Amino acid sequence: MSVFFYGCITMDGYLADKNHNLDWLYQTGTIEETGYESFYKNIDITIMGKRTFNEIEKIGDISGIYPTTRNYVFTHAESLSAKEFIPINCDVVEFVKQIEMDKNIWIIGGNTILAPLLDSHLVDNLIIQIAPVLLGTGIPLFSQKEELKRFCLKEVKKYGQFAELIYSKI
Amino acid sequence: MSVFFYGCITMDGYLADKNHNLDWLYQTGTIEETGYESFYKNIDITIMGKRTFNEIEKIGDISGIYPTTRNYVFTHAESLSAKEFIPINCDVVEFVKQIEMDKNIWIIGGNTILAPLLDSHLVDNLIIQIAPVLLGTGIPLFSQKEELKRFCLKEVKKYGQFAELIYSKI
Repeated sequence: MSVFFYGCITMDGYLADKNHNLDWLYQTGTIEETGYESFYKNIDITIMGKRTFNEIEKIGDISGIYPTTRNYVFTHAESLSAKEFIPINCDVVEFVKQIEMDKNIWIIGGNTILAPLLDSHLVDNLIIQIAPVLLGTGIPLFSQKEELKRFCLKEVKKYGQFAELIYSKI
Repeated sequence: MSVFFYGCITMDGYLADKNHNLDWLYQTGTIEETGYESFYKNIDITIMGKRTFNEIEKIGDISGIYPTTRNYVFTHAESLSAKEFIPINCDVVEFVKQIEMDKNIWIIGGNTILAPLLDSHLVDNLIIQIAPVLLGTGIPLFSQKEELKRFCLKEVKKYGQFAELIYSKI
């Protein structure tokens, strides 16, 4: 079982603006030339929070967006607008720990999902795209507890206006 | 007059830990193989806050660290421990605006110096090294006001365990 975070933030570390809006991201360019497709091919399970689900829902037809993965949404809701997304309401750390050894998990967002996994040292890979934008306020990617956690920088890439930093657990 | 920020932050965007400590940075490696020397050669004036000065002072003999630049420290103090550093107590935006057109200024730190300059659109270049470390809390690099500010990503580099992102004003 290998846990990936793969996603985009601003230069000042925000996943979204304070209203959970991603316009700044869409205005930066597309991810077409990035390694997204080869990344997604290796993923078996996606995990996201309800707010991330809501954002993806806004883009358009959500049913085909993650077609080959089992997609879990952490929410108190009992059902979601697309049958391809499974609502789940439990401790994310316990949930991840019981996933089979040979599965790859993508933490799509947001920070309330990522933080407890970082605190439990369960995040194996961080693939972070940085958009050349400052927002000044918003939803931060990192909201884990105070503790020095060191990763290994494997690679840096440039895709148009996005910088991509690839880290693995030491 | 061209204003540069050049400095290192953690993956979660901190310039220093909450006690203004930089051990996490020194433990990541040295900057010897980076472009620091060629960057510094082009700088005429450095500007820093008093806390940044205090941190540099801790490293050892401070007098020769920025030998070819005119070095200003924003502080209420009337004198500093090294004559190579000039104490100054005024508005940083007004101070920067009156500097001669042909001079390059390096904003060494910290966020109380950088924020008003960003808010006044006076920062021309951001050269940010990212150490592969999460702290969870600390002194953030970015504390400017809420406003979307877009830069242009010129280059990404990898120096050992540091990722370097080079931005210019659009």
